[in-house]
Amino acid sequence: MGELTTDHGVIKTPIFMPVGTLGSVKAVSQNDLIQKVKAQIILGNTYHLYLRPGCDVIEQAGGLHKFINWDLPILTDSGGYQIFSLSDIRKLEEEGAHFKSHIDGSSHLFTPENVVDIQRILGSDIMMILDECPPYPSSYEYAKNSMGLTHRWAKRGRSQFLNTQSRYGHKQFQFGIVQGGTYKDLRIESSKFMADMNFEGIAIGGLSVGEPIPLMYEMTDLNTDYLPKEKARYLMGVGTPANLLEGIARGIDMFDCVMPTRNARNGTIFTRFGKVNLRNAKWKDHHQVLDADFPSELCNSYSMAYIHHLIKHNEIFGLVLASVHNLTFYLWLMDEVRSRIESDTFSTWYPEMVEELERKV
Amino acid sequence: MGELTTDHGVIKTPIFMPVGTLGSVKAVSQNDLIQKVKAQIILGNTYHLYLRPGCDVIEQAGGLHKFINWDLPILTDSGGYQIFSLSDIRKLEEEGAHFKSHIDGSSHLFTPENVVDIQRILGSDIMMILDECPPYPSSYEYAKNSMGLTHRWAKRGRSQFLNTQSRYGHKQFQFGIVQGGTYKDLRIESSKFMADMNFEGIAIGGLSVGEPIPLMYEMTDLNTDYLPKEKARYLMGVGTPANLLEGIARGIDMFDCVMPTRNARNGTIFTRFGKVNLRNAKWKDHHQVLDADFPSELCNSYSMAYIHHLIKHNEIFGLVLASVHNLTFYLWLMDEVRSRIESDTFSTWYPEMVEELERKV
Repeated sequence: MGELTTDHGVIKTPIFMPVGTLGSVKAVSQNDLIQKVKAQIILGNTYHLYLRPGCDVIEQAGGLHKFINWDLPILTDSGGYQIFSLSDIRKLEEEGAHFKSHIDGSSHLFTPENVVDIQRILGSDIMMILDECPPYPSSYEYAKNSMGLTHRWAKRGRSQFLNTQSRYGHKQFQFGIVQGGTYKDLRIESSKFMADMNFEGIAIGGLSVGEPIPLMYEMTDLNTDYLPKEKARYLMGVGTPANLLEGIARGIDMFDCVMPTRNARNGTIFTRFGKVNLRNAKWKDHHQVLDADFPSELCNSYSMAYIHHLIKHNEIFGLVLASVHNLTFYLWLMDEVRSRIESDTFSTWYPEMVEELERKV
Repeated sequence: MGELTTDHGVIKTPIFMPVGTLGSVKAVSQNDLIQKVKAQIILGNTYHLYLRPGCDVIEQAGGLHKFINWDLPILTDSGGYQIFSLSDIRKLEEEGAHFKSHIDGSSHLFTPENVVDIQRILGSDIMMILDECPPYPSSYEYAKNSMGLTHRWAKRGRSQFLNTQSRYGHKQFQFGIVQGGTYKDLRIESSKFMADMNFEGIAIGGLSVGEPIPLMYEMTDLNTDYLPKEKARYLMGVGTPANLLEGIARGIDMFDCVMPTRNARNGTIFTRFGKVNLRNAKWKDHHQVLDADFPSELCNSYSMAYIHHLIKHNEIFGLVLASVHNLTFYLWLMDEVRSRIESDTFSTWYPEMVEELERKV
């Protein structure tokens, strides 16, 4: 448990960061993020924002905070992950990653240097280095070479960061990213490499990309063993509520994932009693609230029959209620975790909670 | 100007009623309807609610108010309009209207009596009689016969209303509906017919179905001449902000329309200075708010560049902001109208306002 102090506020860790891909956390207003979800920090995607609305628009606005009217901390990724998961065609060279936009096919190049420049324009409180995220499975050779490239890019990205200034008067941090596929020696080597550089925090990348969950936990465990405890450790793109607890048990401080909002839009919500499929016909005539004591409107203000009706017929209000609920639940869980850590009961509490969370209600 | 007192609250007229087709005003929460939009009454569609979630579910919930957790007044239409505009196949008989669901093709029959029964189950504060809404244009003969049917149905519907009871302990009103196509003598005859029956209010139906706007105004004018001033007069399915002012000038007290929410989702908003197309590229780098003095978040909390970005990329938050704005604007306009009527300046103010409202910004 710790704190990360940015010019836009203090982040209490462990923390989950809602993802605001295009400068909006899908189906959730900025006001609701603050007042209902109690978000401490949100994430923006460099790849998406660079393409839409583009750096020129965000620069004119005075940065992403001003553009979206958000005064709390923002973390931006480097775009590396999206290049490999979204763009149709790409060419990876020592210089950087050539890619074609998944929107209009236009050609672009991300380099370790220009993703720093772009994130200077976005003005996020925490920026990420450009990395290559190898797919699962990858051969040892591929993972090793890829890690080497990520390491060389990390050095170039850090130089660019140190040689450039924040544009809008607030301090920016830069986090490194550990890679190495699912190979123990590579994961250890990459952890040591990133630990030796002077980043303000370190992320674990390349996990939650299709590998078995136990392997994800094993790699996370290994990584955190070699990462400095005094720096924030961020497990990228993870995950379910249970994944978060398991990650925290292995030393992780920060998480981000589209799962809570994406699942909400598909009708799945997370609760203290497990996963709930709102589309299930069993809710059709369930005229009670789901959980009068949980602080979300979905749980305490509307009957499950009404929520089921809204979700089944794709009413936007239903998507909003479910999205706000899931994020509120993730942030509630992090708050609960911090209390348990403080009272030194986390390690006995979390295995039982994981079991509850994995139930299907 | 007047008041309509229901067991769920007093409605100050002239008023606009947001449409909550399936028990949700699209993209707007019940809380926002009360706190931001300042809605006094909302509308539910009998046809839609009867099909989804069905009367059994709403009856178990204890009526529509409880089902959707809404304590202010609700008006439900009779389903007549949707049968003619939505359902694929229909057979109109003296008994009622046979139709097939636009959802699953299942067969149903609405009669003047059972739409009263259904609206008893829904428990709306104001229910409407079953009518036939003839298309525009219709021949004189078609319009005359159709009006005859609507009149006979009105009598049967009123009997059913008087012979049945409210189910949930609150009073319900029943409104008649004037028809007659666009034929003056039929409109006069139908107005007199409905005026002579003892409905708690009277609606003008069959307008805003494709006829020229001046003709709609002419028919409205004619109808209100023959309708009792002490009863609420409701112009169904109308319209633009300018249509509302013109309707009020002709004696209308109540309006409903999907336009503010539907247009919002398509990126068109209504403002004091005219219509604004949020998708227009001119907003791409307009980094100011649209109207700092107007009480909607879309106008006063976010730059037009950000709003344009959200709408262009179909972010749900953009749909919510635009929908809440448009409804807030409609209700603001009604409030403005009531002030102008009170200060006896309406008749000089409204023609200039109509001109402003029709501008394209």
